[in-house]
Amino acid sequence: MPLSEFELIERYFRDCGHRRGDVILGVGDDAAVLQCPAGAQLAVAVDTLVEDVHFPRGSSAQSIGHRALAVNLSDLAAMGARPAWALLALTLSEADERWLAQFAAGLDALARAHGVALVGGDTTRGSMSVTVTVLGHLPPGRALQRGGGAPGDALFVSGTPGDAAAGLALEQGRLPPCEQAEYLRRRFLFPTPRLALGERLRELASGCIDVSDGLLADAHKLARASGCGVELMAAALPLSAPLLGAVGMPRARELALSGGDDYELCFTVRPHALERLACELPPAEWGYRRIGTLQAQPGARVMDEHGVLEASSSGYDHFAAP
Amino acid sequence: MPLSEFELIERYFRDCGHRRGDVILGVGDDAAVLQCPAGAQLAVAVDTLVEDVHFPRGSSAQSIGHRALAVNLSDLAAMGARPAWALLALTLSEADERWLAQFAAGLDALARAHGVALVGGDTTRGSMSVTVTVLGHLPPGRALQRGGGAPGDALFVSGTPGDAAAGLALEQGRLPPCEQAEYLRRRFLFPTPRLALGERLRELASGCIDVSDGLLADAHKLARASGCGVELMAAALPLSAPLLGAVGMPRARELALSGGDDYELCFTVRPHALERLACELPPAEWGYRRIGTLQAQPGARVMDEHGVLEASSSGYDHFAAP
Repeated sequence: MPLSEFELIERYFRDCGHRRGDVILGVGDDAAVLQCPAGAQLAVAVDTLVEDVHFPRGSSAQSIGHRALAVNLSDLAAMGARPAWALLALTLSEADERWLAQFAAGLDALARAHGVALVGGDTTRGSMSVTVTVLGHLPPGRALQRGGGAPGDALFVSGTPGDAAAGLALEQGRLPPCEQAEYLRRRFLFPTPRLALGERLRELASGCIDVSDGLLADAHKLARASGCGVELMAAALPLSAPLLGAVGMPRARELALSGGDDYELCFTVRPHALERLACELPPAEWGYRRIGTLQAQPGARVMDEHGVLEASSSGYDHFAAP
Repeated sequence: MPLSEFELIERYFRDCGHRRGDVILGVGDDAAVLQCPAGAQLAVAVDTLVEDVHFPRGSSAQSIGHRALAVNLSDLAAMGARPAWALLALTLSEADERWLAQFAAGLDALARAHGVALVGGDTTRGSMSVTVTVLGHLPPGRALQRGGGAPGDALFVSGTPGDAAAGLALEQGRLPPCEQAEYLRRRFLFPTPRLALGERLRELASGCIDVSDGLLADAHKLARASGCGVELMAAALPLSAPLLGAVGMPRARELALSGGDDYELCFTVRPHALERLACELPPAEWGYRRIGTLQAQPGARVMDEHGVLEASSSGYDHFAAP
């Protein structure tokens, strides 16, 4: 490794992200020093991306930098928090400067877009993995939680789930090239954390989770945490035209329900708040759709035109026509 | 992996560490929610331990759990911060439950000893590595910094550096077994973050860094950040009796200067504050010793009985008798 850890950090990460007045001491000392806003609560999340597990070997460095931050920002979005600071723990087998420059560019662009300062980190030698910690602010007592739902609450999802899973399949050559490939690949490589939506949902949603492991599995997690079950309507799934064009209807639904890597928000709204939701956050403008309902009966069920598609807690394990 | 990520987190990390009233929402949602103390600043650090780099393959799981937290608490100690919360990102090739139980026990014991709550994390599959993020509190504007030293400041170190390096050599079989082995191995496997000392030094020290890469290299980092050079007196190095017994004087000095993994504090004190330091923190009680002085001339120099032992910025690269 020709560059020392110190030089690495200096060169690529010292001025990464947004400059914030509440960063008293950023990259370069034993720890970062940050000024908390008076009265606020902190939301903190950490996620690791491992090569060959969370992204294919040889992935674009810019995408890895983007995704490492995006998956964490998505966690803050699901809490309704506003992101402020990030720390990066980067493990690399070698310090390729071009790779590092592109990685930092991907991280930097997303950080700036959301007003996030990179305030600290650690670089080590080893199998490639990237761990990002993000910190954000919340008004006291206002965090969106997984467990806030109740039977009868309407279930929504933002964006068009399934696109990222198709994009990953294209990246890995498991899906043949098609004219929709570029759009779908970008949905995997550069997911969009739904931070503005998350902040607005603080006042409107009863429960929220981000969709990382697949919509069905994550909706079921939300339902379980809320002491409920959940029923999804397959026909209501917001499927993108590129996804339908690339894989056709049955496979598109499968990917939307179980594909993962979407980083969309899955949230619940009390029946009495539905009108306010539609009024304050017009669905066409904010990009979300109702896909189901929480129910007293435990478990997760997907309904299609013909009846029940049975589903398990861990994803789309098997189907059983009634 | 027989246990799902969710079950893993549930079983071993849900109640890990101290229970704190300022944890509004701990392990189990998309992010932790924490209450900042009014008016305080936050100190945040992250460090990764990689198997075969930071600890030998087959190391005691309890030690890995302890060290992953200890190296981060040591960073907070160097800032004079009081630790509060930690997050764990754990990457494992397989989920061995006995290993996990011991790892969690090592982390838990150290966390409880310092009032730290484990509030969140992530588990992924891959080559073993452990990334811990710690958050602590600081009175506003009172962080100890590397760059606070000035020429003429006295340089101190806590503990007995070199012990951990000898302990690692014993662990790896590079040093033959000896009667001091158990003590030295424990200094590597279970380092002691100097948190109480760090907090007291906030009012007394001008600069501080924790010793992770070797005393000479880290003292030089502190000096550089302070715009100074540093001169160390080899004869003043606090060498432990077990270290001297195991390796003899010349090698003990070498390990103390360049061994690394000590997690002691190296700090500077203005001449006018030396009396107050000795009075408020009696050295015999607090376990630290003066080892040198910051100087206007850049660089790091080690003096012994015979003259100058030349030293480089990156450690103990070579010796040159004058």
